[in-house]
Amino acid sequence: MSFNFGENIKISLFGQSHSEAIGVVIDGLPPGEEIDLERVQRFMARRAPGNKVFSTARRETDEAKVICGLLEGKTCGSPLCAVIKNTDCKPGDYAAILDVPRPSHADYCAHIKYKGANDIRGGGHFSGRLTAPICFAGAVCLQILERLGVFIGAHIQSIGEIEDRRFDPVTVDATQLTTVTKKAFAVLDDELGQHMVDLIEMVKGQSDSLGGVIECCAIGVPVGVGEPMFSGLENRLAAAAFAIPAVKGVEFGAGFASAKLRGSQNNDEFYYDHKGQVKTKTNHHGGILGGIASGMPLLMNVAFKPTPSIAMQQNSISLSKKTNTTISIKGRHDPCIVPRAVPCVEATMAISLLDLMV
Amino acid sequence: MSFNFGENIKISLFGQSHSEAIGVVIDGLPPGEEIDLERVQRFMARRAPGNKVFSTARRETDEAKVICGLLEGKTCGSPLCAVIKNTDCKPGDYAAILDVPRPSHADYCAHIKYKGANDIRGGGHFSGRLTAPICFAGAVCLQILERLGVFIGAHIQSIGEIEDRRFDPVTVDATQLTTVTKKAFAVLDDELGQHMVDLIEMVKGQSDSLGGVIECCAIGVPVGVGEPMFSGLENRLAAAAFAIPAVKGVEFGAGFASAKLRGSQNNDEFYYDHKGQVKTKTNHHGGILGGIASGMPLLMNVAFKPTPSIAMQQNSISLSKKTNTTISIKGRHDPCIVPRAVPCVEATMAISLLDLMV
Amino acid sequence: MSFNFGENIKISLFGQSHSEAIGVVIDGLPPGEEIDLERVQRFMARRAPGNKVFSTARRETDEAKVICGLLEGKTCGSPLCAVIKNTDCKPGDYAAILDVPRPSHADYCAHIKYKGANDIRGGGHFSGRLTAPICFAGAVCLQILERLGVFIGAHIQSIGEIEDRRFDPVTVDATQLTTVTKKAFAVLDDELGQHMVDLIEMVKGQSDSLGGVIECCAIGVPVGVGEPMFSGLENRLAAAAFAIPAVKGVEFGAGFASAKLRGSQNNDEFYYDHKGQVKTKTNHHGGILGGIASGMPLLMNVAFKPTPSIAMQQNSISLSKKTNTTISIKGRHDPCIVPRAVPCVEATMAISLLDLMV
Amino acid sequence: MSFNFGENIKISLFGQSHSEAIGVVIDGLPPGEEIDLERVQRFMARRAPGNKVFSTARRETDEAKVICGLLEGKTCGSPLCAVIKNTDCKPGDYAAILDVPRPSHADYCAHIKYKGANDIRGGGHFSGRLTAPICFAGAVCLQILERLGVFIGAHIQSIGEIEDRRFDPVTVDATQLTTVTKKAFAVLDDELGQHMVDLIEMVKGQSDSLGGVIECCAIGVPVGVGEPMFSGLENRLAAAAFAIPAVKGVEFGAGFASAKLRGSQNNDEFYYDHKGQVKTKTNHHGGILGGIASGMPLLMNVAFKPTPSIAMQQNSISLSKKTNTTISIKGRHDPCIVPRAVPCVEATMAISLLDLMV
Repeated sequence: MSFNFGENIKISLFGQSHSEAIGVVIDGLPPGEEIDLERVQRFMARRAPGNKVFSTARRETDEAKVICGLLEGKTCGSPLCAVIKNTDCKPGDYAAILDVPRPSHADYCAHIKYKGANDIRGGGHFSGRLTAPICFAGAVCLQILERLGVFIGAHIQSIGEIEDRRFDPVTVDATQLTTVTKKAFAVLDDELGQHMVDLIEMVKGQSDSLGGVIECCAIGVPVGVGEPMFSGLENRLAAAAFAIPAVKGVEFGAGFASAKLRGSQNNDEFYYDHKGQVKTKTNHHGGILGGIASGMPLLMNVAFKPTPSIAMQQNSISLSKKTNTTISIKGRHDPCIVPRAVPCVEATMAISLLDLMV
Repeated sequence: MSFNFGENIKISLFGQSHSEAIGVVIDGLPPGEEIDLERVQRFMARRAPGNKVFSTARRETDEAKVICGLLEGKTCGSPLCAVIKNTDCKPGDYAAILDVPRPSHADYCAHIKYKGANDIRGGGHFSGRLTAPICFAGAVCLQILERLGVFIGAHIQSIGEIEDRRFDPVTVDATQLTTVTKKAFAVLDDELGQHMVDLIEMVKGQSDSLGGVIECCAIGVPVGVGEPMFSGLENRLAAAAFAIPAVKGVEFGAGFASAKLRGSQNNDEFYYDHKGQVKTKTNHHGGILGGIASGMPLLMNVAFKPTPSIAMQQNSISLSKKTNTTISIKGRHDPCIVPRAVPCVEATMAISLLDLMV
Repeated sequence: MSFNFGENIKISLFGQSHSEAIGVVIDGLPPGEEIDLERVQRFMARRAPGNKVFSTARRETDEAKVICGLLEGKTCGSPLCAVIKNTDCKPGDYAAILDVPRPSHADYCAHIKYKGANDIRGGGHFSGRLTAPICFAGAVCLQILERLGVFIGAHIQSIGEIEDRRFDPVTVDATQLTTVTKKAFAVLDDELGQHMVDLIEMVKGQSDSLGGVIECCAIGVPVGVGEPMFSGLENRLAAAAFAIPAVKGVEFGAGFASAKLRGSQNNDEFYYDHKGQVKTKTNHHGGILGGIASGMPLLMNVAFKPTPSIAMQQNSISLSKKTNTTISIKGRHDPCIVPRAVPCVEATMAISLLDLMV
Repeated sequence: MSFNFGENIKISLFGQSHSEAIGVVIDGLPPGEEIDLERVQRFMARRAPGNKVFSTARRETDEAKVICGLLEGKTCGSPLCAVIKNTDCKPGDYAAILDVPRPSHADYCAHIKYKGANDIRGGGHFSGRLTAPICFAGAVCLQILERLGVFIGAHIQSIGEIEDRRFDPVTVDATQLTTVTKKAFAVLDDELGQHMVDLIEMVKGQSDSLGGVIECCAIGVPVGVGEPMFSGLENRLAAAAFAIPAVKGVEFGAGFASAKLRGSQNNDEFYYDHKGQVKTKTNHHGGILGGIASGMPLLMNVAFKPTPSIAMQQNSISLSKKTNTTISIKGRHDPCIVPRAVPCVEATMAISLLDLMV
């Protein structure tokens, strides 16, 4: 079931880019948990389109309306359902792609899969807009996780060739995570961030687009969370992260870099710290061993391909005429979705973690 | 349920490194499918430990005995169960790690998770030995996939710093896939392969270990296979691949490299080929768009960390004394598990694909 | 996950009796299926409360608003979400039961389970009102099933001691099923139905309530639908039917009566009819053998306990004072929910069957 | 997935009547639980065929061999797999039914479903023999449940027209449950039991067979166990019980009888007992309200149809000739499977309950 995720906390997404509304049902939340909806809304605002240089011109407040599941602000054991209206649809922009699939979009695959019955407007249910209800669910889970001592934060690790600093894999703390999530442009080094913004602006001017990498960290995950084999932290976190459109790679700790290290370099030695807590001196394992949390900071990198919607003319096909043709994509698109994807990555991590923890 | 995988084809693994046996139950196979068990056994032999330089000294034939699910060599609608005896156990080797967890192994996490009740011998149910039943299940799925026109093959993309050539992402065909899977050392370029073998031997002599990357490819996956959001090909293939111990990263198509490309570079333009089939000129998307197969070769890279078991002395802790101490790991360990992991990656891809296709 | 049902067609319910709205998400519907929403609404109207003698005084049109999943009236591959507003809530009626659980209601169990955080108004998420979205989902599935040649209909088999005629288990056809579902009071024998109505009116006057049995039938289910063991038709149909509040028993074919028969009486002999179709002369098996459809009419009886909400005074407890006390239930309640439950039983059968058929 | 059951404790069955072996994998058991395998074997012996009047002549010790999942007699976090050899197969007995399906057996449905590829010997994977691994899993769960204070016992409520006494729905205790499970013929009233045995013997002499009802009870289930809607105790217990071949009906508490009661008769009034515990004066609800345990004894009745295998000649069809014909079933069959099904019902209850409790 592709719009459902979770074993204990079950997320059911619904909606298309241009349907009346989109939303999410969250089943299995522990009862009596206070959910601060204003804080949820602030979390969602980090994803929402705005007038920033690096974002689509589509304007939506993305106000999520809770229609059940809360009683006086607390979870009541009933599924929590939130609905977000689609208010700023411009279906006219998508007329061409009914026939000419956009390169590196899901248009062609969806057309074959659904035999032409799918909603092509705005990408239908493949739209990045579906990450809004993912963010809603993640924001709810985050509040519960914090009460369990778990904090999550992410930053833009790179856009194009420009790389931000990394979280210190051993010493990163809740303050650092909270700080970066409050920034308008989520980087650890604001100067590098400004370079990224400049790059986005430049590439946008070239009718082109950019990808990037997001680094996401969770601290406070209790030792033992996660299951062996198919329900390991890596399996579950990756399974959730790949739901975000444009994600093409996921790695944990040193990830692909660890493939180049020797065992003597990559191994993380255990020790008792001065408080008697078991820690590792390094953290190439990204807080996960055998699929299970080690208690060290959990570290995940997520790679995003460049936005496939670009204004320059591209080759494609006419599905009706069965001939080769060209397409120039109009409409409002982010030249780089990475900045807006930061809370989405946090959200998928939050959903996966809480699912394994309750 | 961590030992279970699949929605339509359900895999249930069981066993520990030093239990009497390990095995797998496969539920949901289509009825009437002929399964060539000798071919299954040959597939499993690629994973089995031998006397090669790069492998553990543990010797086991890994003979899988089918105890139900086949009638006269064909699937009969009943779950297929195969049992593999553990014949060459040396529990004595693991006495030390009952108290001193091995760095970058699951020992410590498992000890906390299972409150000391877990089987530590050989890593218990975290052992790489559990990939034997995964290979069995994969080999069964592969035979059914071939009848559906799908072929899967993988090779060692890199060991340490040495990189093999890559599959051509556009033109790779069944012959190339079959050829590489028949090699004793699965590389495209045998000369580079010999360098890898030399490197493994050298590093083994240093009591150290190596990681690497495996590139796995499937061709013939029909357009439309895969579901949006959480059941996309990437989600499912990653969820399965991370079950292989030591995997720390998974990427599709250009993966992390695509994060550095412009949209105009990364986009794969559609065209009708001379047979009237829709193809893309390049294949940075690795055969997956919106989680759904595009019909182009499906390409996945899987990163393996270096074997954590190394003979040189390392720092660790004594769980009983709650003090820092050191450990020198004895026992029989692969200096690099990547060569033996090649069929495991193929197997997880086969299981995931068939699950989405039936 | 208790509000979710289905492996292939996934139903996710949400809402409480007195939340802003209730609804359902249906994931996995085949694409391109036309859904006649007016017909769905007519189906739901059979369940909706009215001013009939046997129904609650609560008035709601139960208008389901589809907010996504349909494109020009057809399923588009995206989950279908329908929302039903709660417009006629009278929370005041339920003040007492915050402290004094109603006998044979879920109040007490829910209070303990959710540690007092549950929504007690109108029974919260245990309310029979949640059968409205079940009916919506069932009505959608029914339209798709009809295109597959499957027809479902149910009637009131008994209320109190008064029994309706039964469907002929061998010859029942689509016309008979359709006819009874169109009746205002769904019985095969209208005279017996009038006796039931009279009985309900009488018992209502006594401030008491009645239970009953509903017989539900499906014809046209292809031979082979259903899986052995835990996914048999009986397992799945029962698992769905018990979601309807007040259901206390489910049986198939001769059910409990078959326990009193000899094998020679109960066995249903096979024969080829004049069209060369395999049939059975009798149908004690209710169309299901080994969990799998035999092609004969599928027959299920569902037992409903009498409405627990009765106006006469009853003994109960004060949760706050921890003392024994009494309760007189006010509010608007059906003296017998069986007539309104008829479409609910059809709906659960439709959902279960389509889930096993796609 | 039809051979799988459970969300938290996952049961995977495998095997056919005449395959080399049958068995079960149990994933998700809490670690460190001591499992007394001799006691498990004694539980299974209650189901095993013997030389009693009411049983098949097939003799098998049904010795379950644990091949993994236990370490020094305790669960170790790894799935527990038990294998039971099929030692006394007589495939010759089933030659005829390859072509002539036995009335009221799954033969015909399976033949169509699996396109003739299914194993017809002994009923293949539809055989009652598959209840042996169910009993194994149940016996394991029972031992864990007892440590949680839950006790389960069942008795033959009726065979044909002869009815045993019932458990007192309010006062039944662990001693009574334990006592009846230790009897060779599980009835509360041994005199009535003797009548049942006599009836079985008589009917056997007539080449006919008998059905019956089993009443199963659990005490000590904590208030709050079970989930609303689709994961209610009734839903889950029924979903498991219908996996036992020949089960045609399941009811809870007063069940179908409650459909004939008035609300004032059926309602179970709450009160605080002298220990300050909440109880109900009567127990028509069978310990379940809104799908959730009330703390009162949990009561379930399960109806079994008469054994369909009878020696007298019956009408059937020839699948190859497509003509009507007759069949006389040879082989070793129970004239009444109800006595041997008693532990099977207990087992399905144990599996369902533990799954909802961990």
